[in-house]
Amino acid sequence: MKIQIINPNTCLEMTHSMGQMAQKVALPTTQIESVSPSEGVASIEGHYDEAISAVGVLQLIQQGKLQHVDGHVIACFGDPALDAAREVADAPVIGIAEAAFHMASLVATKFSIVTTLARTKIIAEHLLYRYGFERRCAQIRCIDLPVLSLEQDRDNAYQALLVECELAKRQDGIGAIVLGCGGMSDMVQDISQQLNIPIIDGVSAAVKLLEGLHGMGITTSKWGDYAYPNLK
Amino acid sequence: MKIQIINPNTCLEMTHSMGQMAQKVALPTTQIESVSPSEGVASIEGHYDEAISAVGVLQLIQQGKLQHVDGHVIACFGDPALDAAREVADAPVIGIAEAAFHMASLVATKFSIVTTLARTKIIAEHLLYRYGFERRCAQIRCIDLPVLSLEQDRDNAYQALLVECELAKRQDGIGAIVLGCGGMSDMVQDISQQLNIPIIDGVSAAVKLLEGLHGMGITTSKWGDYAYPNLK
Amino acid sequence: MKIQIINPNTCLEMTHSMGQMAQKVALPTTQIESVSPSEGVASIEGHYDEAISAVGVLQLIQQGKLQHVDGHVIACFGDPALDAAREVADAPVIGIAEAAFHMASLVATKFSIVTTLARTKIIAEHLLYRYGFERRCAQIRCIDLPVLSLEQDRDNAYQALLVECELAKRQDGIGAIVLGCGGMSDMVQDISQQLNIPIIDGVSAAVKLLEGLHGMGITTSKWGDYAYPNLK
Amino acid sequence: MKIQIINPNTCLEMTHSMGQMAQKVALPTTQIESVSPSEGVASIEGHYDEAISAVGVLQLIQQGKLQHVDGHVIACFGDPALDAAREVADAPVIGIAEAAFHMASLVATKFSIVTTLARTKIIAEHLLYRYGFERRCAQIRCIDLPVLSLEQDRDNAYQALLVECELAKRQDGIGAIVLGCGGMSDMVQDISQQLNIPIIDGVSAAVKLLEGLHGMGITTSKWGDYAYPNLK
Amino acid sequence: MKIQIINPNTCLEMTHSMGQMAQKVALPTTQIESVSPSEGVASIEGHYDEAISAVGVLQLIQQGKLQHVDGHVIACFGDPALDAAREVADAPVIGIAEAAFHMASLVATKFSIVTTLARTKIIAEHLLYRYGFERRCAQIRCIDLPVLSLEQDRDNAYQALLVECELAKRQDGIGAIVLGCGGMSDMVQDISQQLNIPIIDGVSAAVKLLEGLHGMGITTSKWGDYAYPNLK
Amino acid sequence: MKIQIINPNTCLEMTHSMGQMAQKVALPTTQIESVSPSEGVASIEGHYDEAISAVGVLQLIQQGKLQHVDGHVIACFGDPALDAAREVADAPVIGIAEAAFHMASLVATKFSIVTTLARTKIIAEHLLYRYGFERRCAQIRCIDLPVLSLEQDRDNAYQALLVECELAKRQDGIGAIVLGCGGMSDMVQDISQQLNIPIIDGVSAAVKLLEGLHGMGITTSKWGDYAYPNLK
Repeated sequence: MKIQIINPNTCLEMTHSMGQMAQKVALPTTQIESVSPSEGVASIEGHYDEAISAVGVLQLIQQGKLQHVDGHVIACFGDPALDAAREVADAPVIGIAEAAFHMASLVATKFSIVTTLARTKIIAEHLLYRYGFERRCAQIRCIDLPVLSLEQDRDNAYQALLVECELAKRQDGIGAIVLGCGGMSDMVQDISQQLNIPIIDGVSAAVKLLEGLHGMGITTSKWGDYAYPNLK
Repeated sequence: MKIQIINPNTCLEMTHSMGQMAQKVALPTTQIESVSPSEGVASIEGHYDEAISAVGVLQLIQQGKLQHVDGHVIACFGDPALDAAREVADAPVIGIAEAAFHMASLVATKFSIVTTLARTKIIAEHLLYRYGFERRCAQIRCIDLPVLSLEQDRDNAYQALLVECELAKRQDGIGAIVLGCGGMSDMVQDISQQLNIPIIDGVSAAVKLLEGLHGMGITTSKWGDYAYPNLK
Repeated sequence: MKIQIINPNTCLEMTHSMGQMAQKVALPTTQIESVSPSEGVASIEGHYDEAISAVGVLQLIQQGKLQHVDGHVIACFGDPALDAAREVADAPVIGIAEAAFHMASLVATKFSIVTTLARTKIIAEHLLYRYGFERRCAQIRCIDLPVLSLEQDRDNAYQALLVECELAKRQDGIGAIVLGCGGMSDMVQDISQQLNIPIIDGVSAAVKLLEGLHGMGITTSKWGDYAYPNLK
Repeated sequence: MKIQIINPNTCLEMTHSMGQMAQKVALPTTQIESVSPSEGVASIEGHYDEAISAVGVLQLIQQGKLQHVDGHVIACFGDPALDAAREVADAPVIGIAEAAFHMASLVATKFSIVTTLARTKIIAEHLLYRYGFERRCAQIRCIDLPVLSLEQDRDNAYQALLVECELAKRQDGIGAIVLGCGGMSDMVQDISQQLNIPIIDGVSAAVKLLEGLHGMGITTSKWGDYAYPNLK
Repeated sequence: MKIQIINPNTCLEMTHSMGQMAQKVALPTTQIESVSPSEGVASIEGHYDEAISAVGVLQLIQQGKLQHVDGHVIACFGDPALDAAREVADAPVIGIAEAAFHMASLVATKFSIVTTLARTKIIAEHLLYRYGFERRCAQIRCIDLPVLSLEQDRDNAYQALLVECELAKRQDGIGAIVLGCGGMSDMVQDISQQLNIPIIDGVSAAVKLLEGLHGMGITTSKWGDYAYPNLK
Repeated sequence: MKIQIINPNTCLEMTHSMGQMAQKVALPTTQIESVSPSEGVASIEGHYDEAISAVGVLQLIQQGKLQHVDGHVIACFGDPALDAAREVADAPVIGIAEAAFHMASLVATKFSIVTTLARTKIIAEHLLYRYGFERRCAQIRCIDLPVLSLEQDRDNAYQALLVECELAKRQDGIGAIVLGCGGMSDMVQDISQQLNIPIIDGVSAAVKLLEGLHGMGITTSKWGDYAYPNLK
């Protein structure tokens, strides 16, 4: 099985790091290819960044489709262009936000999200409503650091993330925490060990969901809304 | 006052026709400029088309911003790139779907939507939830004709639209009908006269809402979520 | 175009002040007539006051109808007798609460309301649900001063309002603030300037929405729920 | 214990008939007094009728309060002026729509409502949302006959009601039916016997809920929203 | 009339105390029988305890049915096995949580719940959604004491409950408080007197609702979901 | 990895058949053990059956825990005792209804459920709300055949299921179908091939989700609601 991890931004360190995380949780028989667009935005921190990133995401979906990958992950917490990608793709497509929400809701009655900048909280909130997890999420928290600081000032970012996760654990009445940025993927293990509560990384969750769908022989429905885009 | 009507698809007849509709309902002191991207999709009939159109929409928003327009209309019923556009713009930005929903809910307790292809119904449904009109919309109906047929086979499309609006009036327990495509703008008057029930065209509604915000001296909030996109 | 501003309480200063505000934002071609009932309650601060005020509101609607006004504003933040007024009227009728909610939601993802007494918060909350804005409103705040203090002790009331709006801006994660009382209309400009965030006054919003509907040739639907009251 | 049944319309036959129904289900120790306003509307079939009836309802509440009744029933299915009445009253006040919804939801997972005119369906729908029963109600049906026909053409009305209840039983996937008009109270027994499914009459339900509250020593809270109306 | 109070746990003091409370509020003509299973859990403080208690509850329902009781109360705040009991029983069955919610919502626009352990809050929350009271409940609070402490260390528990109810009254914007455990029944009167706000005990509420249904001649619907369990 | 499939009813054919289905989709490294209680109900077709089955489910969970299984599936579409099982277990526990909903929502915007008897529809509906999938499910359909007919009269049941799935595909505006009974597991492949639309079997889905959680190193949170049951 071959899974394509699409980092919608152009930050190669993040592409690499998410690819590593994906490989770590994947089955031995699963081949991971992590890619990012050659042009686009360096990080995704708002609606504009998301909209701009969509073109790159869709081109990479097309490219993965030609390579006959068995699943695509859109590895940005806003799940940009997810519905569009499902129209285009043959294989299943999963966003890391939805993946994390699904997995978190299987192990806890409630979870909190810890994301980067305050301005991205509205994106997470919209996704919770879209997917139906609004009653499962107790709180959306942020560390008030830009996405790229997760790569460029990792220690500082890790400390900020740890503190906020600790607050979530103590104050929110939750059982699990969802990390609200693909760039946090490589911190999931350390935080889990320190806090002793399930911490959900969306990249890992998406890989496992794709492996699951693959094992069931299920792919994106082409009956109805997700049919291939209409020719004009 | 200067309002930019952005047709997110590349169909010039539609750009022209929506511009005319806008001018017709605008105040004498309002100048309408209707534009469309030079590249993109000929019509928007799904999530993929929407995602692709976003780049063109945002470039046109930037262009309108340089021309100091006082308001932007995104004239496609899926309101593509609306949140992104609000981040970029100085002036208010309004989508024709939201505009129609707002206006319809001021004159009727419930409305139905009549759109083009069945596959676009999910887009309208998502918008109703996003904006909070899900309890005001009784039914989303479609005429099962592609968007471009509204231009290319107008008589046929008009008849199909009329029939479906008549059904909505008789069966849905509603007080108003929202036309679910910018390409239907020029049919609103004829259908209103035949059915004797408020028919809401989103292009007209968006223009009047922009004039209203302008008169109040209100523009998109730059405090919070709609702040200008972050520099990286 | 002629718009009737109905102040549902008997406080003439408020009638006058809201009329002035309305004229200020109205088009030069719009004529404003602000009226209030000769009998009723001096201010509206609960469900009882609202119910009592309904009779006066409906008489004034009838009176405006005889004068062939082109739109009615119910200028009390509880939108008393709004549905009833729509049954009676020929022209569109808009409440200042709904008007403010609609306009605020066009320029911000979330807003807070600042109203007068704590006991009126439930009225605002009920309206948010009725209209579908419950997910757009972050917080309903109050200044704990009676409505009439806005006229009788204006400086004190202004300070209290300013403080609460400042708190809303800092703490609520919002992009706009809705003023929760018609009596605050004349403070909107000063607060806007001090806080640099969109502050929405419902009287202004209602006037502009009526002008918009008028420009679209749309009036209250007489098909269905808002048909004229049945003769017995 | 003394319960005041307030018929908000001026139809004395209905006042009498609802009083009889109330007495029939009341405890032997409960004294029923059924009253109606001397002026107002002959029947309540829309928002306007409701708004107009509110004054009479509130006067009768005041009158009942002077007589130290132990509970008030607002015996019109729109529960007009309910919140206002609770502010004014010392004793508990219950509307017949809410009463019926509460009781129906104790004996069935879902119920349907059968009301009079189609235009009153929106009132029932609003109440379902206000009270939180929207997921319990499968359908709102109507017999398309005016309220007064229940008195003036009883046989015809009874047949129409029976047919519609039968349809509700067969088609709606429900376990109980709520009669959507106080004027249907005296038909509840006959329909129950014919259909063999719980049929809920709001007048009876309200009386029993008042007796229940009385037995618990609970009355309307004067802490918060339902405090007595503010003096100006 | 004969009402069976089923204490789903095996704590006899609680069975006795709830029986006394029930008798106190019941009509003179109502006979109360309070029972508890011979085997099961000593107290119910989570989902596991609830699931285990269900068998005992259903056996007691069967036993009550053989004795031709006229109503059953499931006297644990999680309403365990309520739907199952309704399938089995001839007479109506009421849970004390639902009973309390219904009664509280008749006398206040909002209520708070004060329960025992934090881990039971999710059970109350699920019930609020199931029954449709999620918008009526402002807050779910807990005293962080196990259920049995209500019997074994009554003074301490009473103080903790009083403090939390006082906080609810001051901070939650509510008009009534629901006691979130059957074991608190005998404290309702003292707390009511001290706080001067309606305090709702579910046992009392359930008894009065059963008396009400009995007076109306209404029992659990056997049409549809609550039909007797299928024979295999 | 070792997964325990718990059939909550005592029908051994079903236990066997679900075990086979599970093994078919499981990884080669996953060992499946399918079990059912020695006592209980032959099939689960209502709330009573569910409540009774809970004891057996929890005993089997305990037994699986002693055997150090890595995951438990509750293989009945009502997900009986799911929350209770999570309190007891060390390993993750997944119900087949939730599993099917999660997987279906990854490949289609909407799905329909096809279940057995009409009386079980309310159980599915409650789960949709509990889990947050109520906006994703277009319709709950049933074939009006008892659960055991799936084993005893397989051809007839298959035809009925096929017909209803076909109707769902044509009429419901969906992209996927969820099979609403564990006993339908072995029909999923045939129906998929005939209808050419994703058909989701909950047993398969649950197995793959457990494998996914296992691969992520995530298990049920013991922080908060799902902590081990309290000792008394």
